[in-house]
Amino acid sequence: MQLEKLPKTIVLRESEHAQLCAIIVDQRKLPQVLEYLSLVTHDQVIAAIKTLALRGAPAIGVAGAAALALYAANESTAKTGGELVFELEAIAQKVSEARPTAVNLSWAVNHALSVAKTLAAQGTAAEQIKEALCDETNAMIAEDEQTNRAIGAFGATLFEAGTMVLTHCNAGSLATAFYGTALGVIYTAAEQGKITHVFADETRPVGQGARLTAWELACVGIPCTLICDNMAASVLAQGEIDAIIVGADRIAANGDTANKIGTYGLAVLASYHNVPFYVAAPTSTIDPETPHGSDIPIEQRAASEVSAYETPGVDIYNPAFDVTPASLITAIVTECGIFKPSEIAAAMLRDDSSDQVIC
Amino acid sequence: MQLEKLPKTIVLRESEHAQLCAIIVDQRKLPQVLEYLSLVTHDQVIAAIKTLALRGAPAIGVAGAAALALYAANESTAKTGGELVFELEAIAQKVSEARPTAVNLSWAVNHALSVAKTLAAQGTAAEQIKEALCDETNAMIAEDEQTNRAIGAFGATLFEAGTMVLTHCNAGSLATAFYGTALGVIYTAAEQGKITHVFADETRPVGQGARLTAWELACVGIPCTLICDNMAASVLAQGEIDAIIVGADRIAANGDTANKIGTYGLAVLASYHNVPFYVAAPTSTIDPETPHGSDIPIEQRAASEVSAYETPGVDIYNPAFDVTPASLITAIVTECGIFKPSEIAAAMLRDDSSDQVIC
Repeated sequence: MQLEKLPKTIVLRESEHAQLCAIIVDQRKLPQVLEYLSLVTHDQVIAAIKTLALRGAPAIGVAGAAALALYAANESTAKTGGELVFELEAIAQKVSEARPTAVNLSWAVNHALSVAKTLAAQGTAAEQIKEALCDETNAMIAEDEQTNRAIGAFGATLFEAGTMVLTHCNAGSLATAFYGTALGVIYTAAEQGKITHVFADETRPVGQGARLTAWELACVGIPCTLICDNMAASVLAQGEIDAIIVGADRIAANGDTANKIGTYGLAVLASYHNVPFYVAAPTSTIDPETPHGSDIPIEQRAASEVSAYETPGVDIYNPAFDVTPASLITAIVTECGIFKPSEIAAAMLRDDSSDQVIC
Repeated sequence: MQLEKLPKTIVLRESEHAQLCAIIVDQRKLPQVLEYLSLVTHDQVIAAIKTLALRGAPAIGVAGAAALALYAANESTAKTGGELVFELEAIAQKVSEARPTAVNLSWAVNHALSVAKTLAAQGTAAEQIKEALCDETNAMIAEDEQTNRAIGAFGATLFEAGTMVLTHCNAGSLATAFYGTALGVIYTAAEQGKITHVFADETRPVGQGARLTAWELACVGIPCTLICDNMAASVLAQGEIDAIIVGADRIAANGDTANKIGTYGLAVLASYHNVPFYVAAPTSTIDPETPHGSDIPIEQRAASEVSAYETPGVDIYNPAFDVTPASLITAIVTECGIFKPSEIAAAMLRDDSSDQVIC
């Protein structure tokens, strides 16, 4: 395991011109080349999220907070804390709408906005609020890794030695600030000597499994086989998969889980083959405001992602996500512990004084 | 329905230089351009089959017979019928091995070879045997269309008005001499006004659904939506699919069916969503010599079909087919009628005096 070979997905730093920058891995370029983008405006962050230069629910959450920090540092002309918060409210709305399905984005943006609001209400000056937004983003980046390592520690207890596991899309380090959720569980289990092999679904149409998950696993040195999405059933039938683990973009109050398109079909296949199906996600992915999976908005993306050739008379359907019912999920692994999907709602009882879930 | 817009997949004709040619659609070029290849040697036919310029179990069966006809007409120097048959036996073996899974290939090659053998045993001259092989191939081409239209007529009885159907890979006109098996059923049902919509799985890694099925449906004017393979579960969950119909590459005696990779997973999903799952294939696809699906050889193809990027440390698994157990197949539609998979063995009782199945 060579985790040090994995890049930090997003880092805030000051540029040579004393501008605040978000340095992100340009995930569209992987696996051919590891290149970084330097973002200095909130619109650049939105564009990076929309074009999938940066993706993954936890990563776009942190990026949403970074967008507010960049706006405050580089774009705002507000002279008072109140003026800055007034501007940030509109920016927060715009950033939250960059992608609709992952709740982490609006969660993180609202969290950053609430920090600014609290400070402004206390009469804090605009300059200090700008610094606080930068600090808050950095704290989120650090917390995200801690959260993922906690998810990894809990999740690894689910695996025995000699486990062959399948994952879909990329819920890896690149989908988070660092370490990953579903892949984080695999990394921790691999460090404990439990993982024999990982099968990575290529994950059409964008290929996050083929391009990102396979690349991450090769970086850290875990044996990996890339398959097309439609091969998973065959590999399951051959008894080569002991467990399936995936990430999540939004978990409804009843445990229904939205994740990358193809996840639901895998969950059905796991059930048919009596293989456990795990979801690994931070509690910020759980949305108590969404009662059922059917209430989760599913982003529809461009037909050009599916086919470069437009055939007249042929429609293309390209939902980016699907919803797996709680009944098909064996357990949900969070940084607070492992839950049955039906128990997630209870775990969501929040302490009014905090944003944290009490588990 | 504008069936006349579909090309003939394979035609035998004499070239300007008085050589026998097999003119085939180059399916690697679709949907961008409809181009034909002119094949004059058996090795060119083998190359076309191996590179998927020509694919589909019934189509490669006919092409296998054509390979023998081309060899006899253009390559053989045999002076007697006996010499020609001696040569053809080696050629037949070589052609049969071009692809291992579809039994139609060896079935058709052996059928053509037996015609030559019978004639040679009767003392027929080499020239007449050459003509007979050409005639036999043309007869197979004509019979294949008749067979498919019979499959279509039987299969269409399974559908009611307003049916939305999903298909995988291309079991269309391009997979046969003309008309198609699974798509043939859809064409007949559409002519009867029963088909509202067809969902075409793109069928990774080679994209036969995206490139060929969607193109065929657009040609004939049937409303079609292209989806990635991993979206089928989601579309099924939305209740937008009334039936799934696919072709077959080999049907074992017990009804287990090998077909394009991804078929098995679809069958599991169909069962989970209580949607009927049909296989449409000529009886030449049924192999009484193969007792169970696990006895069917599964072709492994090049990793480069799955990914253009070789990531060191990442293996790629690329089986071209999978096996769907008979228990997940609602019915098998043949030119002789509709069978429960478990009844296929009984339907296979052959009359010793003929190659035809008695139904």
